Amino acid sequence: MTELIQSKAEGVSEPQISDIKGYVRGLGESARLAASSLSVASSAKKNEALIAIANAIELNADGLLQANAMDMKRATTHSLDAALLDRLELNAQRIKSMADGLRSVAAQDDPVGSLSATTQRPSGLQIAKMRVPLGVIGVIYESRPNVTADAAALCIKSGNVVILRGGSEAVESNRAIADCIRQGLQAAQLPSAAVQWVQTTDREAVGELLKLDDCIDVIIPRGGKGLVKRISEQARVPVIKHLDGICHVFIDESADRPRAIDVALNAKTYRYGICGSMETLLIHKAEAALSLPELVHEFDAKGVELRGCEQCLQICSSMLPATQTDWDTEYLGPILSVRIVDDMEAAMAHIARHGSGHTDAIVTENMSRGRRFVRQVDSASVMVNAATCFADGAEYGLGAEIGISTNRMHVRGPVGALGLTCEKYVVTGDYTTRS
Amino acid sequence: MTELIQSKAEGVSEPQISDIKGYVRGLGESARLAASSLSVASSAKKNEALIAIANAIELNADGLLQANAMDMKRATTHSLDAALLDRLELNAQRIKSMADGLRSVAAQDDPVGSLSATTQRPSGLQIAKMRVPLGVIGVIYESRPNVTADAAALCIKSGNVVILRGGSEAVESNRAIADCIRQGLQAAQLPSAAVQWVQTTDREAVGELLKLDDCIDVIIPRGGKGLVKRISEQARVPVIKHLDGICHVFIDESADRPRAIDVALNAKTYRYGICGSMETLLIHKAEAALSLPELVHEFDAKGVELRGCEQCLQICSSMLPATQTDWDTEYLGPILSVRIVDDMEAAMAHIARHGSGHTDAIVTENMSRGRRFVRQVDSASVMVNAATCFADGAEYGLGAEIGISTNRMHVRGPVGALGLTCEKYVVTGDYTTRS
Repeated sequence: MTELIQSKAEGVSEPQISDIKGYVRGLGESARLAASSLSVASSAKKNEALIAIANAIELNADGLLQANAMDMKRATTHSLDAALLDRLELNAQRIKSMADGLRSVAAQDDPVGSLSATTQRPSGLQIAKMRVPLGVIGVIYESRPNVTADAAALCIKSGNVVILRGGSEAVESNRAIADCIRQGLQAAQLPSAAVQWVQTTDREAVGELLKLDDCIDVIIPRGGKGLVKRISEQARVPVIKHLDGICHVFIDESADRPRAIDVALNAKTYRYGICGSMETLLIHKAEAALSLPELVHEFDAKGVELRGCEQCLQICSSMLPATQTDWDTEYLGPILSVRIVDDMEAAMAHIARHGSGHTDAIVTENMSRGRRFVRQVDSASVMVNAATCFADGAEYGLGAEIGISTNRMHVRGPVGALGLTCEKYVVTGDYTTRS
Repeated sequence: MTELIQSKAEGVSEPQISDIKGYVRGLGESARLAASSLSVASSAKKNEALIAIANAIELNADGLLQANAMDMKRATTHSLDAALLDRLELNAQRIKSMADGLRSVAAQDDPVGSLSATTQRPSGLQIAKMRVPLGVIGVIYESRPNVTADAAALCIKSGNVVILRGGSEAVESNRAIADCIRQGLQAAQLPSAAVQWVQTTDREAVGELLKLDDCIDVIIPRGGKGLVKRISEQARVPVIKHLDGICHVFIDESADRPRAIDVALNAKTYRYGICGSMETLLIHKAEAALSLPELVHEFDAKGVELRGCEQCLQICSSMLPATQTDWDTEYLGPILSVRIVDDMEAAMAHIARHGSGHTDAIVTENMSRGRRFVRQVDSASVMVNAATCFADGAEYGLGAEIGISTNRMHVRGPVGALGLTCEKYVVTGDYTTRS
C-alpha cells in the first residue's frame, strides 16, 4: 500500500488499493480502536501534538508548496475554474495561517472532561454532566487543503478520532499535510490512527465510509450543496451538515442610516463566495426612500447587480425586477435581491419563509425590536448591528471551524471543538439504592 | 372527522379517515405553523397551560378511568400479556402521578430564551448563545398512556410543538388525556396545534409521519427494540432513540462488601423490566471468593437465576454456566450474568465490548479508580456507588422524561425539557463590519 502509482487518467499518484471496501473498513476499525485512548488523552499531550503539527507544517513549508504546485498544475491542465484554483492554492501566508490555527486551538481550554454543576437529589444521589468526545468523526471535503489541518486540530483537541477524505484535486497537498500530522502525533506519543487520511481518491471509498455505522459516529461533509446533499441522503450515520446560506439583513426604520448602509455593503461585498454573504436586503418602508438611492449608488460602484421588488423599482427605476425565484436564491456572487417591507414583522415573515436558518441580521436602534428579532428569528446565528459575513468560527473565537451547521439538533452555526463533544451523566452516591 | 366509528376488527372506536397521507400532512403543517408562536410563548403562559392540563386531568379522573377500562377490557379480550396490561392500566395513583408530573415540569426553570455568558471579540462583536426549541417533535409510543401527558408537558415547557402517536391498545385512554391537554392549551390561549394527537391507529399514519422531514424536526420512539429499530431505519428525520440497556455493576476489590452487595441486589431486583436494570455483574477477583457466595444466597432468595463465568462456577458450583451470548443479552427479567475479572481494566474492557452505552456503575472506595472509571467508561450514565436502576428522568430531577437516549449526538441519557432544545448564536455589534 505504500507504493505510489501514477494514475494515467487523472495524473494523480496514489497507492494502488485493490480492495477499497476492506481498506476503508480497516481505517474504520483502527479509528474505533484508537477512540478510547484519544478520549482520555491528557490536555497536555493533545496540545503537544497540535503544536508539533504546527511546527512540522512550518518546517516542511517548501515540501507543502511543491506538493501543492503539483495539484495546481494538474488543476490548471484540467482547466478547473478560478474559484476552485483559489481554494486549492497554498502560499506562505496560508501555510502560516494553518500553523497559527493549530496553535490557537492548542491555546484553548480543553472541552473534554469538564464537569457541570452538581445537583443533589432527595435520594442522596449527586448528578452532574461530563463533557466527552463524540467518538469517531468522518470529514469529507473538497478542494481546500487547509481543511486537513483544521479538522485534524479540532478533532485532536476534542478527543475525537478523525478519518479525512479530501478532494482528488488536492491529493498531493493533503498527503503532505497528513505527513506533518503524523509527525506531530508521533512526537506526542498519540496513536497515529487518531488522524487517518484516506489514501485513495476512488469515489467508492466515500460510499464505503458512509456505510460504516459501527465505526463512525458522525459524518461532516464540507463542500458544495451537491456533495452535502448526496452524503446526507446516503449516510447511515448522523450528518452535521451545512446546506444553503441565504442570509438577510433587515434595515429597520430606526437604524442609523449611514452606518446601516456600511453594514449592508460589507455584508454583501466582504467576499461574495462565503456562506455568510448577504443575499437579500430587506428595508423598512419608512426608511427606503432615503436609503435605497444611496445603496443603489454604492452597490453600483462595486459592480453588484440589484434585483428589487416592485416598490423598489418605484423608487429606483434603474434596478432590475426581482422574480419569485430570487428570494430563494443563494447567489454566492455579485447579485443582491432587495425588498421593501412594511415593518419588522413582515421582514421576519420573509426570513421565515425564504431564509435557510443560517445567519440573519437586523440593523436597528430600537431596543424592543432588536430583542424581539433575536428571540424570534430561527437561524443558527442572529445578529444585531453586525454584518452577516462575520458568520465564521474564527470570528466567533473557535480558533478554527470544522464546518457550519444548519442542522437544528446537536449544534448550530460554526462548529469548533466544543461542537464535537456531548455530555454524559455522572451519578455519585454513597452505596445508594432505590426504594 | 369528528364522527367516531366502531372498527369491528379491533373494537377500537375512532374517526373514519379515508386519506391518511393527507391527514398526517395536515397535522404536520399545522404543527409547523404553530411552532413559531410556541417558540416565543412566555414562561407564564406555558406554565399556565401545564397547570390547567394537570387540573383537567384530576377533574376528569372518572372519565379517564372509564376510557382506560375500555382499553383494558379490549386488551384482556385480546389476551395481551401481563406486563403490557400493567403498562396500560390507569388508576387513581397513576392519574395523580401524571398531574404531579405536569406541575413539577411547570415548576422548573424555562430552558428557552436563556443567554449564555458573552464573549467579546477583537472585532468588537459580542458572541453569546441562546437556548431555543428544536421545533416540531414527533413522539411514537406504545401502550403507556402516561407518555401522552409527559411528552406533552416537556414539549410545551421547551416551546416545542409535538405530534403524539400512541399505541392502538391505549386509544381510549390517550383520547381522554388528549382532551384534557386541549382544555389546558385553550385555558392558556396557546394554539391547540401545539399538541396534536394522531386520531387514527392505522399503521400507515406512522409511515407518513416518518417521511414529513419538512414539518418534523426530530422523532422520538418509545417502546420495544423492534419499534425503535423500525422507526430509526425508516425515518427521514433525526431520531432520538433508546436501544439496548445492557447495564453493568463492577464491584471493585476496595468496595465495602455488605453495602456493595446491597447495591448489586437493588440494581437487579428494584424492577426487572426497566432499562436501567443490571444485566451483568462484574466482580474483582480479589473480592469474589467472599462476595460471590453471599450474592448467590441473596439472589437465590429473590428467585434470580445466575449464570456465571468459569471462575464463578469454581467458587459456586450451583450457578449455571454463562455462554458467550449471555454477555450481550438484556434479560429484562430475573436472570443475571456474573463474571469475575482480574481488575478494573478488565471490567472496563468487558463493558466497552458488551455494554450498550446506557448505564454502568462501579462500587469502590478507591478514589483514583473511581475517577478513572467515570472518565473512561463511555456510557450515557456512569455511576459510582449507586444502583443502575436510578437511570431515570425523575430521579435525575428532570420532572419527567420523554425518553432515554443512547445516541451519542445531541443528548445522552434521560431526556427532559433541556434535551429538547438547542442553542443558536446571538451576535451583537455596533454597526460592526468585517475588514
